[in-house]
Amino acid sequence: MRTLKHPSREEIQLTDVFHALSDPTRLAIVQNLGDAHEQSCSGLNIPMAKSTLSHHLKVLRDAGLTHTRVEGTHRLMSLRREDLDARFPGLMDVVLRTAPVS
Amino acid sequence: MRTLKHPSREEIQLTDVFHALSDPTRLAIVQNLGDAHEQSCSGLNIPMAKSTLSHHLKVLRDAGLTHTRVEGTHRLMSLRREDLDARFPGLMDVVLRTAPVS
Repeated sequence: MRTLKHPSREEIQLTDVFHALSDPTRLAIVQNLGDAHEQSCSGLNIPMAKSTLSHHLKVLRDAGLTHTRVEGTHRLMSLRREDLDARFPGLMDVVLRTAPVS
Repeated sequence: MRTLKHPSREEIQLTDVFHALSDPTRLAIVQNLGDAHEQSCSGLNIPMAKSTLSHHLKVLRDAGLTHTRVEGTHRLMSLRREDLDARFPGLMDVVLRTAPVS
């Protein structure tokens, strides 16, 4: 099975997390994922070219915000809530309870 | 007295705040300001060309993170803690209690 590279918990940097969240689409993806289980790309319901969406998902993954599991032809995303709460307690609470970007 | 433009509380956007905080120097400035009173540029103790520092301070001001008061030839900065707490409760607590960027 192909696996994707993810930073370890200790490697997650606050400035990288802020950069990833500074884009309205990426912030919306994180808010959509929320505390839900895994979601597929189509489940995110973001109307956007696949290549653009893939870029945003890579930025989120590289920053340590999301985990992507490859299952066959599907990619299943989830928020790394436990890692983020351990690194920056309270941050995800703020992000998820702020009204989604309009 | 010359006054600088600042966004109103309602105009402060979460993505702009995250963009401003995604740079290690700007994050350090915000953490230096903390809950302190006003600080001058020199008080920030950031070893950097004045023009570069001015740029960073403008990004912070435009995002609504800081307020700059012009007094003669001095500029005095402060964190807009009350506005930020009203817009994004808990965010500044997280930012200020996270260990400064090394």
